[in-house]
Amino acid sequence: MYFCSKKRLEDKIKTFSTFGATQNGGITRYSLSKEAHQARDEFKRRMEKIGAQVYTDDLANMYAILKGDGTKKEKIVMASHLDSVKNGGNYDGVLGVLSAMEVLETIHDQNIPHHHDLVAMVWTNEEGSLYPPAMMCSAILSYEDLPSSFKDCFVEETLLNSRSVLNPNETFKDALEASPYKGDKKNRLNKKDYLAMFELHIEQGPILTNNHNDIGVVTCVLGMCNYRIKIYGESDHAGTTPMKYRKDALYAASKVLLYLHEQLDKLPKDLVYTTGEIICQPNVHTVIPSYVEFSLDARHENPDVIKEVVKIIHSLPNEVEKCRVKPVLAWERDTVYFNKTLVDYVLKASEALGYTHQYINSGAGHDAQMISYVLPTTMIFVPSKDGHSHCEIEHTPLENCEKGVNILLNAVLTCDKNFEK
Amino acid sequence: MYFCSKKRLEDKIKTFSTFGATQNGGITRYSLSKEAHQARDEFKRRMEKIGAQVYTDDLANMYAILKGDGTKKEKIVMASHLDSVKNGGNYDGVLGVLSAMEVLETIHDQNIPHHHDLVAMVWTNEEGSLYPPAMMCSAILSYEDLPSSFKDCFVEETLLNSRSVLNPNETFKDALEASPYKGDKKNRLNKKDYLAMFELHIEQGPILTNNHNDIGVVTCVLGMCNYRIKIYGESDHAGTTPMKYRKDALYAASKVLLYLHEQLDKLPKDLVYTTGEIICQPNVHTVIPSYVEFSLDARHENPDVIKEVVKIIHSLPNEVEKCRVKPVLAWERDTVYFNKTLVDYVLKASEALGYTHQYINSGAGHDAQMISYVLPTTMIFVPSKDGHSHCEIEHTPLENCEKGVNILLNAVLTCDKNFEK
Repeated sequence: MYFCSKKRLEDKIKTFSTFGATQNGGITRYSLSKEAHQARDEFKRRMEKIGAQVYTDDLANMYAILKGDGTKKEKIVMASHLDSVKNGGNYDGVLGVLSAMEVLETIHDQNIPHHHDLVAMVWTNEEGSLYPPAMMCSAILSYEDLPSSFKDCFVEETLLNSRSVLNPNETFKDALEASPYKGDKKNRLNKKDYLAMFELHIEQGPILTNNHNDIGVVTCVLGMCNYRIKIYGESDHAGTTPMKYRKDALYAASKVLLYLHEQLDKLPKDLVYTTGEIICQPNVHTVIPSYVEFSLDARHENPDVIKEVVKIIHSLPNEVEKCRVKPVLAWERDTVYFNKTLVDYVLKASEALGYTHQYINSGAGHDAQMISYVLPTTMIFVPSKDGHSHCEIEHTPLENCEKGVNILLNAVLTCDKNFEK
Repeated sequence: MYFCSKKRLEDKIKTFSTFGATQNGGITRYSLSKEAHQARDEFKRRMEKIGAQVYTDDLANMYAILKGDGTKKEKIVMASHLDSVKNGGNYDGVLGVLSAMEVLETIHDQNIPHHHDLVAMVWTNEEGSLYPPAMMCSAILSYEDLPSSFKDCFVEETLLNSRSVLNPNETFKDALEASPYKGDKKNRLNKKDYLAMFELHIEQGPILTNNHNDIGVVTCVLGMCNYRIKIYGESDHAGTTPMKYRKDALYAASKVLLYLHEQLDKLPKDLVYTTGEIICQPNVHTVIPSYVEFSLDARHENPDVIKEVVKIIHSLPNEVEKCRVKPVLAWERDTVYFNKTLVDYVLKASEALGYTHQYINSGAGHDAQMISYVLPTTMIFVPSKDGHSHCEIEHTPLENCEKGVNILLNAVLTCDKNFEK
C-alpha cells in the first residue's frame, strides 16, 4: 500500500482556504471569480512543480497530467471543483482537487510506477452559484450520453448564456472569455482518451460520522423527482373579507404540505424528501394570498419508491379549501450506479488500509454523476463534521482527509494496473 | 334634501380614470407620480372653475375651499386620496375625492347656503405603494394625538426618508421637493381651524353587496393586532440529510399556521384574520429551510376578542418539530370609533333619501381613522362589486356612487347647520 504526505496535504488545505476566505473561517469562491483564479494559479504552480503538464479546455476545465510509462494510451482522471457556494466551507469540492494533487505529488515524490497518464482535474462551475445550474460543465461534456429526460436542462448554448445572479448583464460565456484559463475544445475529457474517473468528496450528511466510519464507498447517486406544487386562491383585503368568502392559497398550501409529509412518511425510512422553497403572491400581510407554489424534492435509490412518491403527489385532491391544486413535474432522474469494479477497488483499499468504512449512496449531485454516463466512474466519501456542508463551519478533520487520499491513491493505482473498459 | 348631478359625477369618474390608466381598465397612479400630478391638475382646474380657492401644505396635501357665509370660522372637510396601488381600480380613494368635488360643485351650482367654509381635500400618499407606509400624511398631521402604540411607526423624519420601492436612491422627501404641489406647513389641516371630517370610500368587501344595501353607515375602524410568527430550524442538504435528523422550519411553520387557523376559527365568526406574508430562508429547493416567518393580522371591533387572539398566539408551544417558535408583536391598535353625531347624520340622510343601508365597520385602515384622533370624523361606504378592491376589476356602479354623494352632500349640510364640537 502507498501513503500520501499528511503534512503536504495540510499545507494545501490551509493555502487554498485563503482564496476567497470569509470572516468566519469559510470561503466565497464563485467559479471564474478573482478568488477562483487565485486557486487555479496555485493549482497550476504546484502541478507544474512536479512536472505535470497543465492545460485547459474551452470551458476552462483544468487538467494536470502526470505522464505514465507509455504502455497505455488512456488517461485516468481524478476530478472535483474549486468553486464554492456563498459563505461555503473549505472542503466541499476543493478537497477532491487537493486529493488528486496529493496523489500525483505522492506518485512523483515516491517515484511510483504507473502505466497510464494520471490526471488531476478541476471542473469549472460545479456549484453554479453565480451562473446556474450546478454541474454545468460536466453536463456539457456528457451531453451526448445523458438520458433524454436530462438533455433539455443542459443545452450548451443555453448554459453559456446563463446570467450572473449578481449582474444580469453578464453571462457565463462573458466570464469564460475573460478568463486566462479558457482553452481549446479539443482538450475536453472524452470517452476515447480516458479510461476512468474518480471523485473524492465530503459526504455532506451525517451518516459516516454517526456510524463512526472513515470512508464511504459510494455505490450510486440517488434517483429523484422534483415537483412544483401550485395552489391557486384569490387575493382579497385582509380587513374587509369575511372568513367564509376567502380562498386563501397559503392556508391551502399548508394543508397540502402537511398531507404530503404525512403520506410520504409512510414510505421507506431512507427516502429523503424536502419542501425547501415557497413562493407566495402577493405576499403582503394585509392581503389574502392568491397564489402559492412550493417545491418537493424526493430521492431514493429504488425507482419503485420514487414511483410511490409520484403516486402520492398525484393523489392530491384538485381542490383544497376552495383553492385549485396543481402538481407539476419539474424534472426527474433515475438512480445512477457507479462502475462496480471501481467501487470494489475503493472497498478493497479500505479493507487493506484497515479504515472503517461502509457502502453509501450520494443524495447530492456531483460531476461524477454526469461523467458516469460517459466513463467508468466512482466516488469516495469522507465524513464532514455533523454532516454540515455549504456553510462556513463545514469541517473534515485532517486525519479523515488523509485517509481519503490514501484510498484514492491506492484505488487509482489498482485501476492503473488492472482496469479495462 | 339636496341631489348632486349624476352626469357631472360620471364625467369626473371617466376623466380621472384616464390618469395612469392601465391596459385592463384599472390605474397605476403612485402618489406624486406624473399621473398623480395630472389628476391633481384636473382637481385644481375643476375646483377653481367653481370659485374654490386651492392651496397645499408642506406634504402636498391639497385643499379646495368653498367659502361659507362668514358666520362660522371652522372648516368642514371632505377628504380622500387620488393615489392607487399598482394595477388598482378607479374607485378606491379617488371616489372620495370626486364625491367631495361633486358636493362643492352642487352647492355652488344650486347656490345652497352654508355657514362654514367647505373643503374638498386630497391626501398625499394614502396607499404608500411607492413610499411606505400607508396613511403616511394623515398620520403625520395627527401625530400629537395618536395613541402611544402608534407613534413609533409614524415619526415624521423617518417617514420623509421613506425610500421608493422602485428606486432606493429616491426618498419621499425628494418626490415632495420635486412636486409643484408642495406648499406651506401652516396650511396643514388642524384641530383649531377645522370642525369635522367626512370620508366617502368604497367598502372593499362583499358585505353591502351581499346584503343588497346601497350605503354603509360606518361606525368604527376595527381594532387589530399584527404578529410575526418566527420559526427557527436548521438548513441542511436536501439529498444527504436523513429525515430523522432534520429541523425543517417550513414543515414546522405549516403546522403552526394550521394550529392557529384551527384555534382562531373557534372565536366569533366576524373575526377576520390573515396569514398573508411568508418568508423562507434560504428558500432553495435543494436545502432544508432554516428559518420561516409569517404574518398574522387579526381584526375585530371587540378588544376582548383581540385579547383571545393574542392568548391563542401565546399558547403556541416553544418548539414544534424540533424548531423553535417565537411570536413577535409587530403592532396593534384599538378599535377607533367615529363621532356618534356625525354617524347619525349619515344614518338620517340614508333614511331620508330612502336608500337601503346598514351599520358597518371598516376592516381596512383609512386617513379618516388617523384624523379621528384629531377631529370629529366619520365615513360613508358604498358597495364595490363582489367586494373586489386594489385590483383592476374594482367597480362601483354609477348609481351607487351617486347615492353615496347624495348622502355626503346632505350629511355635510346637516353638519354645517347643527354640529358643534
